[in-house]
Amino acid sequence: MPKLRVHNVSISLDGYAAGPHQSRDHPLGIGGERLHDWAFATRTFRGLHGLDGGATGLDDEFAAQGSEGIGAGIMGRNMFGPVRGPWGDERWDGWWGDTPPYHHPVFVLTHHPRPPVELHGGTTFHFVAAGIEAALERAFEAADGLDVSVNGGPATIQQYLRAGLIDELHVAIVPVLLGAGARLFDDLGAGVDGYECVELISSPAAAHARLVRTSAA
Amino acid sequence: MPKLRVHNVSISLDGYAAGPHQSRDHPLGIGGERLHDWAFATRTFRGLHGLDGGATGLDDEFAAQGSEGIGAGIMGRNMFGPVRGPWGDERWDGWWGDTPPYHHPVFVLTHHPRPPVELHGGTTFHFVAAGIEAALERAFEAADGLDVSVNGGPATIQQYLRAGLIDELHVAIVPVLLGAGARLFDDLGAGVDGYECVELISSPAAAHARLVRTSAA
Repeated sequence: MPKLRVHNVSISLDGYAAGPHQSRDHPLGIGGERLHDWAFATRTFRGLHGLDGGATGLDDEFAAQGSEGIGAGIMGRNMFGPVRGPWGDERWDGWWGDTPPYHHPVFVLTHHPRPPVELHGGTTFHFVAAGIEAALERAFEAADGLDVSVNGGPATIQQYLRAGLIDELHVAIVPVLLGAGARLFDDLGAGVDGYECVELISSPAAAHARLVRTSAA
Repeated sequence: MPKLRVHNVSISLDGYAAGPHQSRDHPLGIGGERLHDWAFATRTFRGLHGLDGGATGLDDEFAAQGSEGIGAGIMGRNMFGPVRGPWGDERWDGWWGDTPPYHHPVFVLTHHPRPPVELHGGTTFHFVAAGIEAALERAFEAADGLDVSVNGGPATIQQYLRAGLIDELHVAIVPVLLGAGARLFDDLGAGVDGYECVELISSPAAAHARLVRTSAA
């Protein structure tokens, strides 16, 4: 059975997956860039962004797992861009330029339908207004036997966790305090009960925790 | 200059330093005991509780730092016991029996003054109704040149963090999800700005983060 997986979600010591006041100038919120320093130092992330070099080792091994066996992705509207409400006249095709780092179909949750956007390198953004389960169904179909990844943001991961639909979750705890922002583990209610942490290991740049679902969805 | 230090504060992956519904039967809240499994497995914690054996290694090294050079402690009323409001007729001398694991004077923050309680092994509980700075002053005086430790709970640590009075903070992140409870890093406002994480290292049982204050109080 293909799985729904979450990888490389970075949270601060105080639990925030993004800083406060997200905007076009601060897509990760104020101070949120620091959450991703460990990832952008790795060979894997540099490679996904078309860059040479980067570190190997523990952080890179976790970074690499984020793409292994993934055939499609899902993301929330707020991760796709700063536009809220109807899409408007100005064209927004994501934060990532002509060649996004996904290299597979990505299903964007939105209340505002829109035709697909096909970019270079294999990434096509599809817009799904029918809810998280419909998006998941379309993503599994597009993945064609491979796994599906929920890329974020925090609110979208929470929705899938509350619904008990995520099979595996990798969190990188980063040694910074943000003081405010969007928490990852919040408002989950009983959604956390079916998960167990099966691995905890750290580099100086990030403590990696791997959670798996222990009960059926 | 003697320092104000915090050690061995265990938090879950979702940030809780205690589970929900703390009571006499559940002093650490529902599920909160699991936060301390790593510590109670160490030789240091067993020794502080008068028990033989226990593991050495990384977790034990961090556990041991919690007593090194500490001459007095501070704790909140809710950590001392489940009694709220006036002390009442029933005598409550803490959770720890005749010989608490502190072995030095401990200053308990309360709105309800009470004579000191002297127990075995060097622990005397003093009750301070004059606020966190008065308690700190008395603790430094009692420590006589050694450092002072804030033992908890989360709300008390938060008060001292908000006031910028804590010099060093060691947090153990434990690979469990509690889903609810009392968060450690919450409502801190600008209190977090003066702190920097200088070490992150993990055993399979806990990821240890060490924070130091980088600006003057």
